[in-house]
Amino acid sequence: MIGKLKVNNTLTKKKEVFEPLNPPHVGLYVCGPTVYSDVHLGNVRTFMSFDVIYRYLKFLGYKVRYVRNITDVGHLLDSGEDRISKKATLESLEPMEIVQKYTNDFHDVMATFNILCPDIEPTATGHLMEQLAMIDQLVDNGLAYESNGSVYFDIEKYNKENTYGKLSGRKIEDLLNQTRELDGQDDKKNPLDFALWKKAAPEHIMHWKTKWSDGFPGWHLECAVMSTKYLGKEFDIHGGGMDLQFPHHECEIAQSYGTYKKEPARYWLHTNMLTVNGQKMSKSLGNSFLPKQLISGDHELLSQGFSPMTIRFFMLQSHYASTLDFSNEALIAAQKGYFKMANGMRIIKKMEFAENTEATIDEKQKEQIEKFCDNCYYAMNDDFNTALTIGHLFNILKKINAIHTGQLSMAAIGKETFERMKSTFISFNEEVLGIKAEDSLPGGQLLDIILKEYQQAKEARNYDKVDELRSALKAGGIVVKDMKTGIDWAYEE
Amino acid sequence: MIGKLKVNNTLTKKKEVFEPLNPPHVGLYVCGPTVYSDVHLGNVRTFMSFDVIYRYLKFLGYKVRYVRNITDVGHLLDSGEDRISKKATLESLEPMEIVQKYTNDFHDVMATFNILCPDIEPTATGHLMEQLAMIDQLVDNGLAYESNGSVYFDIEKYNKENTYGKLSGRKIEDLLNQTRELDGQDDKKNPLDFALWKKAAPEHIMHWKTKWSDGFPGWHLECAVMSTKYLGKEFDIHGGGMDLQFPHHECEIAQSYGTYKKEPARYWLHTNMLTVNGQKMSKSLGNSFLPKQLISGDHELLSQGFSPMTIRFFMLQSHYASTLDFSNEALIAAQKGYFKMANGMRIIKKMEFAENTEATIDEKQKEQIEKFCDNCYYAMNDDFNTALTIGHLFNILKKINAIHTGQLSMAAIGKETFERMKSTFISFNEEVLGIKAEDSLPGGQLLDIILKEYQQAKEARNYDKVDELRSALKAGGIVVKDMKTGIDWAYEE
Repeated sequence: MIGKLKVNNTLTKKKEVFEPLNPPHVGLYVCGPTVYSDVHLGNVRTFMSFDVIYRYLKFLGYKVRYVRNITDVGHLLDSGEDRISKKATLESLEPMEIVQKYTNDFHDVMATFNILCPDIEPTATGHLMEQLAMIDQLVDNGLAYESNGSVYFDIEKYNKENTYGKLSGRKIEDLLNQTRELDGQDDKKNPLDFALWKKAAPEHIMHWKTKWSDGFPGWHLECAVMSTKYLGKEFDIHGGGMDLQFPHHECEIAQSYGTYKKEPARYWLHTNMLTVNGQKMSKSLGNSFLPKQLISGDHELLSQGFSPMTIRFFMLQSHYASTLDFSNEALIAAQKGYFKMANGMRIIKKMEFAENTEATIDEKQKEQIEKFCDNCYYAMNDDFNTALTIGHLFNILKKINAIHTGQLSMAAIGKETFERMKSTFISFNEEVLGIKAEDSLPGGQLLDIILKEYQQAKEARNYDKVDELRSALKAGGIVVKDMKTGIDWAYEE
Repeated sequence: MIGKLKVNNTLTKKKEVFEPLNPPHVGLYVCGPTVYSDVHLGNVRTFMSFDVIYRYLKFLGYKVRYVRNITDVGHLLDSGEDRISKKATLESLEPMEIVQKYTNDFHDVMATFNILCPDIEPTATGHLMEQLAMIDQLVDNGLAYESNGSVYFDIEKYNKENTYGKLSGRKIEDLLNQTRELDGQDDKKNPLDFALWKKAAPEHIMHWKTKWSDGFPGWHLECAVMSTKYLGKEFDIHGGGMDLQFPHHECEIAQSYGTYKKEPARYWLHTNMLTVNGQKMSKSLGNSFLPKQLISGDHELLSQGFSPMTIRFFMLQSHYASTLDFSNEALIAAQKGYFKMANGMRIIKKMEFAENTEATIDEKQKEQIEKFCDNCYYAMNDDFNTALTIGHLFNILKKINAIHTGQLSMAAIGKETFERMKSTFISFNEEVLGIKAEDSLPGGQLLDIILKEYQQAKEARNYDKVDELRSALKAGGIVVKDMKTGIDWAYEE
């Protein structure tokens, strides 16, 4: 390994050397989507960021167990409504039909952007018994109380042994001052207390019978349960969007600590927000677009569509903890950048080192290239700084292009440096950043170009050419058809 | 609708007119895969068969809710071992990691064969509380008893009010005679009793704490719970492979009836087995291949690989309730058939009816075509007979080709018959059978043909041609590069 991996720990507000609890194993938990509507671009950015983190940890040789949940119930809002149930009632659908539809869509979007599947993708409904067991333990530990069929977490008691708000930097007194009394919260001892189990109102269609009530789990509970179940009471990295810091992640820490008396995650990593032309992206401002709109270009703020790999490349040109600003200019520039990189990949993959014993080694070039390769590691080791990494890859690209055009002699950098340059460039692009080649022209258009050539050759009575094209296509199972109406093709039957 | 849909009901052993309980709604439940190993070809056939059934019901205008489960725990074998847990211990993996891997693989295989996602794909672990509730109800109803931390279904008691074995045609006395006493079944009153809840042996790593024991649910329970939860206590169609008739489906009926005192499904449909060159396909005989092997051709029994659509077409050439025999000859014939059909699709999609007021209508041709179209419905209405349907589509195809080659005048069949022929041919192929076009030649090979043309044009100093090809590719974002080493291409940056 070159250098040490450091991560910006939101919990300690420090950049720290990453030291896994049980090397070579690394446990990584990321809060996944609530599957009641289309996945938005902010989600894509978050999951793409942790995809690269997952990829880089594996690239460094760690055995990573990556858990990213699916919230399919119990996303308890301030109003006490469960978002999934609400939508279901509106559409007169079974909630699990909505869950299925949006889970499928979510998986499609992830695959489109070459985001790897996590090792385990647990669902909230799949862990109800574990959630009930954690509630029991919290009640036993004196940190939760039942009230009118619901069970709440007792913030005041918890605060005697830990500090609620330490992750997000909030003070309990300030929070209390900010809190307004909301409907249905009369059951609580303290307005900051949050629901572990919520008695279902009659209009709720997702509920389960327990000793407390017919109800459903509070949203914060599932992540505390599933992270510790699959990664241990203490684990390495917990991630998510920064909007989840408070209250979701504070509550997670409170529940896990309250149950096991251990701080659950050692390193907390949070992705930052999206902006559009400098303004926060939000539905209410009308400046948010869906992933598919960004791909098709079908939105008034977009001058054109962008391919999934262009978008991936664009997103990784910012560090995950910085805001990411969308603009047509920046996207078009990213498209250019992606094509440059993709061309470099094509070139280097075909390039083999040619031995030349008479060549003199250019030490300066060799050193530069070695440094660029080192820098890729240093950049990723610096809190997974993909933006810097891409910059270093462009420096390597210049050398690759210089060799390709003959400005730089391959022999002058020596076999070892050449091979390192090749493998670093390919692996950081493909394995670490997850950038891959995309088809530029669809097959149908290419076939049309060939058929036009065929027609012209036929008109010119160039029968050698006609035969050549005919047999080239036939080798691929395509038969050219000379119809009265023109040239067409068919699958060879 | 043309005619009435009839289905071969395994429960009554009769072909019956299909009458949904709550038209236009139809509930369809199919037993899904156990996700602890690669999905085998028999599964693909079963899920493809029910995919066509789902598609045809929707095509007829029914609002179908299709539920197909994922068995991620509790596949209790005769030996008392849980298959998933066993594999997990061997590989020292978390069971849910195995579940995730094979669930992802399963979804990939389904998508490869153009098998639609069900509306709900529930998991066994996602319905533990519902399973515990059904056990409670069965105990309350006097049909289940606890013994040493496990809970068993009482076949003898159940048989006083219903008939265990009626679906598979087995007699309880014969079953008793065939039953050997196996390890760990001493807890049972009767050897035919089956586990609803099983106390976990120490080596079991998937288990949940209940009032009976730390254990896991019996495999048969999940389908009884999930079918009735999402489709109602009585629903329309229950499907699965015929190997599941006994004991799985018998046990399902027993549990659902025992809980709700209603026969759960009205129509039971079962898919038949696969054979290879006339011999039953089985792992132990060494004549079974995986879907990916059939596609790649990487198996000693296969002379070549076959595309997913060829395989789909091949499978649908047999009725789901008949055995399906694999042989190289039959697969090659299916490939030819698929290409014929795909060529017909290309032709008819481009064909528009041309009005010709002077044409005389050929009543005989018209009648024939109308009859072929009707026959597609009659065939599918006859217990979803895809084999016959494909035959009728080939009859239509002959007419399409006759029009295409000028042997039959389009005007002679009239606009109405032409439009019906067109829409029937397209919709039965695409919507009902799920047959779609496949790329024959990959884009890269087509591009190579064009670049070769370019090179020849350049050598012949045919600069018009050079410019023409260059600009045709540039329109698709591809720049031709004249390198010293030859012609290459790059993405336009």
